[in-house]
Amino acid sequence: MNALRAWLAATLLLPLAGFAAEGMWTLDNLPAKAMQKSVGFTPDAAWVNKVMQSSARLGNGCSGSFVSKDGLVLTNHHCARNCIQELSTAKADLIKDGFLAKTREAELRCPALEINRLEEITDVSAKVDAATKGKTGEAFAKAKKAEIAALESTCTGTPKTARKCEVVTLYQGGRYHLYRYHRFDDVRLAFAPEEAIAFFGGDPDNFNFPRFDLDMSLLRVYENDAPAKVASFFPLKPEGAAEGEATFITGHPGSTQRDLTMAQLEFLRDVALPQRLMLSSEYRGYLARYRTEGAEQSRVATDDFFGIENGLKVRKGQLEALQDPEVFAFKKQQETELRAYVNKNAKLKKDYGSAWDEIAKAQITARNIYWEHRMLEGGNGFYSKYFDAARTVLRAAEERAKPNAERLEEFGDARLPQLEQHLLSTAPVYPEYEKATLAYSLTKLREYLSPDHPMVKAVLGKDSPETVAARLVDGTKLGDLATRKALWEGGKKAVDESRDPFIELARKVDGAARALRKTYEDEVKAVETKNAGKIAAARFALKGTSVYPDATFTLRLSFGQVKGWEEKGKPVTPFTTIGGTFERETGADPFALPKSWFTARDNGSLNLSQPFNFVSTNDIIGGNSGSPVINKQAQIVGLVFDGNIRSLGGAYWYDERSNRAVSVHSGAISETLRTVYGAGVLADEMAGH
Amino acid sequence: MNALRAWLAATLLLPLAGFAAEGMWTLDNLPAKAMQKSVGFTPDAAWVNKVMQSSARLGNGCSGSFVSKDGLVLTNHHCARNCIQELSTAKADLIKDGFLAKTREAELRCPALEINRLEEITDVSAKVDAATKGKTGEAFAKAKKAEIAALESTCTGTPKTARKCEVVTLYQGGRYHLYRYHRFDDVRLAFAPEEAIAFFGGDPDNFNFPRFDLDMSLLRVYENDAPAKVASFFPLKPEGAAEGEATFITGHPGSTQRDLTMAQLEFLRDVALPQRLMLSSEYRGYLARYRTEGAEQSRVATDDFFGIENGLKVRKGQLEALQDPEVFAFKKQQETELRAYVNKNAKLKKDYGSAWDEIAKAQITARNIYWEHRMLEGGNGFYSKYFDAARTVLRAAEERAKPNAERLEEFGDARLPQLEQHLLSTAPVYPEYEKATLAYSLTKLREYLSPDHPMVKAVLGKDSPETVAARLVDGTKLGDLATRKALWEGGKKAVDESRDPFIELARKVDGAARALRKTYEDEVKAVETKNAGKIAAARFALKGTSVYPDATFTLRLSFGQVKGWEEKGKPVTPFTTIGGTFERETGADPFALPKSWFTARDNGSLNLSQPFNFVSTNDIIGGNSGSPVINKQAQIVGLVFDGNIRSLGGAYWYDERSNRAVSVHSGAISETLRTVYGAGVLADEMAGH
Repeated sequence: MNALRAWLAATLLLPLAGFAAEGMWTLDNLPAKAMQKSVGFTPDAAWVNKVMQSSARLGNGCSGSFVSKDGLVLTNHHCARNCIQELSTAKADLIKDGFLAKTREAELRCPALEINRLEEITDVSAKVDAATKGKTGEAFAKAKKAEIAALESTCTGTPKTARKCEVVTLYQGGRYHLYRYHRFDDVRLAFAPEEAIAFFGGDPDNFNFPRFDLDMSLLRVYENDAPAKVASFFPLKPEGAAEGEATFITGHPGSTQRDLTMAQLEFLRDVALPQRLMLSSEYRGYLARYRTEGAEQSRVATDDFFGIENGLKVRKGQLEALQDPEVFAFKKQQETELRAYVNKNAKLKKDYGSAWDEIAKAQITARNIYWEHRMLEGGNGFYSKYFDAARTVLRAAEERAKPNAERLEEFGDARLPQLEQHLLSTAPVYPEYEKATLAYSLTKLREYLSPDHPMVKAVLGKDSPETVAARLVDGTKLGDLATRKALWEGGKKAVDESRDPFIELARKVDGAARALRKTYEDEVKAVETKNAGKIAAARFALKGTSVYPDATFTLRLSFGQVKGWEEKGKPVTPFTTIGGTFERETGADPFALPKSWFTARDNGSLNLSQPFNFVSTNDIIGGNSGSPVINKQAQIVGLVFDGNIRSLGGAYWYDERSNRAVSVHSGAISETLRTVYGAGVLADEMAGH
Repeated sequence: MNALRAWLAATLLLPLAGFAAEGMWTLDNLPAKAMQKSVGFTPDAAWVNKVMQSSARLGNGCSGSFVSKDGLVLTNHHCARNCIQELSTAKADLIKDGFLAKTREAELRCPALEINRLEEITDVSAKVDAATKGKTGEAFAKAKKAEIAALESTCTGTPKTARKCEVVTLYQGGRYHLYRYHRFDDVRLAFAPEEAIAFFGGDPDNFNFPRFDLDMSLLRVYENDAPAKVASFFPLKPEGAAEGEATFITGHPGSTQRDLTMAQLEFLRDVALPQRLMLSSEYRGYLARYRTEGAEQSRVATDDFFGIENGLKVRKGQLEALQDPEVFAFKKQQETELRAYVNKNAKLKKDYGSAWDEIAKAQITARNIYWEHRMLEGGNGFYSKYFDAARTVLRAAEERAKPNAERLEEFGDARLPQLEQHLLSTAPVYPEYEKATLAYSLTKLREYLSPDHPMVKAVLGKDSPETVAARLVDGTKLGDLATRKALWEGGKKAVDESRDPFIELARKVDGAARALRKTYEDEVKAVETKNAGKIAAARFALKGTSVYPDATFTLRLSFGQVKGWEEKGKPVTPFTTIGGTFERETGADPFALPKSWFTARDNGSLNLSQPFNFVSTNDIIGGNSGSPVINKQAQIVGLVFDGNIRSLGGAYWYDERSNRAVSVHSGAISETLRTVYGAGVLADEMAGH
């Protein structure tokens, strides 16, 4: 142990006990005892079933919930932001001005958004384990992929567009479950407030509390061009939940790393997180300046920009958590205990004992290929929607000709509909912006791989990144939907014949990119999964199955209560009010309120003492954005949109002392729909009227 | 020890033996035996004296050398870059086009550059130790400062402008030496090539080799408006040095951290380096975009931009070195050995045993105040030349009224002339650029300290960073030299009466900024210095005085030889040629050569087989830029301008296997002055004609 840490470890106590509200639990394995003890509630099968069928997953990585029988979906503004931006034009900026469909006919279809509803969970661990038994590396990866593709394809059946099946790797490889979803691919925007109030406080307030955001939007799923009828939904309870009341959050937390080994955490701490932070910090600066160049530049770049700022804050919080000697010591202690347990038992030692070292070795490969992999395969060298489209059609031409089991994952039958929807989206692409972002990323490609790297030479030749980017963007036809459609449908022949400069670029790098992906999948990912499976088995042996798996962007339930916390010795109360927003208002972005709010305040219709945002102890993570907060009666009392800054360490461990979910109060949703936005019809619909 | 590292340590050998060429030695303590053994040369007193008197230190953090009796100074282009940029205008871009003074009368005075020549070294350790004996924390810092100020002030005498005295803290606090310099404050530009060849390959090639850069410039020091006569200088030997030949580098390496404790290295690895890397990555992106907005924007921002890119590469290399388990294990082993040695001896243990833990505790303070200190006192919250000027005059008004010993360091008598020269520089300030950089940094101030920090509220009020920046820049008169002069000379009364918005801004934050500085100086720096002094004493007890101190931007000599290295198993030859430059040329920046080079090649006057750049094993670090490479006869055979990428780890240790200094060959200097630039007169002057 190093000096500073040794000194700290000797000085500080580790108050890590009492994880009462810990866990993002799968719905088939809820911790009944812990829930009863912690919040005095044991859900029955009907409750669980209702929760499952009323929860929604957005294809873009967010959560949501069904809130009316007519397919109304409540989620965050920032979860629908991409759609809102794509529906905006230089003349009608729905991000800035908000949107309300006066009638259902006026609801606007999102160009590339799908919503899934979980229908069934099946444990397929035995099948995957049988298929991969005794295999390692490439053979393991191949066998696993083939089995998963077969399971997904069989489950999907026909018609493919309405059903979606995914095999989920739980416990980092300890269990495999098949999740079957109903897929809604016609999603329309019903309501969005102005971004000034949806994201009031902007990046400075992001991940902070007290908070004052109406980070909500209302979507509606359609089938056969009519609002979909849904059997199960959550009604909204405008009274919300009182301090101390039990709260449940159902949603799709994206990813946690609580079960990783120390070697993996070190890789994150020393390589992946700092390297990515540097890269995206630089891009943030670039886009920040780009956005000052005009109102249209600001508008066009803003979605990427917010995504980058949000990601940066998340990763900074994660890095700080990993650099905290207390956290690292705690994780190390857990690993040491588990390894000691394994090593004490000859059978366990033989079966699982080498798993940690195998994973440690894979980290060295991960380190060695890090930038080549990120730049050429991971997309950091080519920030361009045209490039993405070119790679998709290029690879689709090859992959779709293969048997399902042998394709790259994203081209599997089960995933093709979503891929197609994205490729054939009507969302606008902005050539000048493309030039700027592509030129920027090509500079990074050259920097991170060196000017002498064969792929850099192949891409840039004797030209500057700016020249290359301009030539590509000026020469491409991929901005036309018809062109993309022809290439998608024309298959290999059409793609082979294409001389589109982006197709040619994608073709140039594809060999190298695929090779890197293969190395990563066979020598890193497969090794990690196989050995994490062993570690999970060891953990089950030690602790039984009363453990929850790391988050995987699949449906989870967390329980907790409305509760503040102590920050630097001072109590933080759990609620803010609408009135508090006006106190924080400065008139300058991001602390400027929209006109509609002043109007409502000034005409006296706005209830300033209405609770606005609140915190609860529920264990959540990115991907839970848009999740409903429900009470024991499965009524909506809030809408998750953030965590406090302490929640970011939740990637690695849950600390009930200070980790808090941040939500919009249900009453604020109802109140502002009625008094600020003239959207009483929607408020009524959510109230079940 | 953590898992990945444990695995590595068990797997790899640590081939750390044979540091033959290691060390940046002070001229009064050269390692005669090691030099004789390593390069077959023991310098005599005359040689050392000549080296001392022919070496030059540039006030901006670079090195140089006197190369003629008429005060000609050879240094890098990037060392004179600031001056060249300040002498440029939108119409005459000397950075782009280069500059040659056809006559001495045409040489252009640099607005804010001074050159120092070391005259005498005196050991004053006993005096400083006596003054600080038994003191700790604030008392230690105060006593040390007072003693140093007194020593410097006495030494400086009158006239103050031609003499400069600095007490240098060696061995991180183990010794104190008084360095007396002759100060030249009239420095003029005689020659600079086009930046396209001075920095050929740009950021991508920076810190790499093979390399093809004419990173040189020629300055001349003046006294009484005439070229200064200097008694000692290095003649240029166009033949250079052969492979394997002994080379000596004399110069001013800025800073190394080889003697730091593990706790300090951990602070650098976990906090300072990653945090600064993120901040400057973002600023790099911002300026990169700014520079695309027009030719003038590109020109105005380029000096800052290159500085940031260079700093980033340096710190990335340093972070990678610290994240290398081999290096960390090596450093840890050294510390463990020294601590064991101390702990075995009761007297040593009593005197020095607690030093490491004291330093570790200070790192926690350093961590706690990190961003407040950097933002409010370190300048990261206020990227503005106006702000710098405002703070200087504000503080000068207070500080100059105090006794010399009680002032902030930079306002001590010995340092005032340089401060005044900077403040009253005629270099242009660009208001639009100021607005952009200030607005950017105010956004960071708010982000890093939070919108609720009292200083953020005081600075921004209810406005956006952009609004505040524009109001300040539009309202200030600090762009006028006369205004700055009046405030500098008018003292406290003039400053108190000023309502200049930048003065008001500086006034607003000064209390908080000074308080943070005091905490840092008393609770971090003083603790580190005091205890590093103990550790140095322990090291002297273990190893004798045959050790060199960490770099301190004071004159050092390193020895070595012209020699390539192995990179990934392949040999890198030590020389490149002028002809090779044309092979690497692409026509696109930063791989585009200036027209002058094509002309010289095409008319046959350029010798393409002339060696251009070369590497040697000399141990150098940033600050050595501009250093002469000399042979045993004290003739110039090269001009240091860079290190290879492996040299960046040199901040923490020297690895002769792969750490290389990168220099311009003396023959390439002579050749191109004559054939490309028509500057035969200067080439002759350097040859001693």
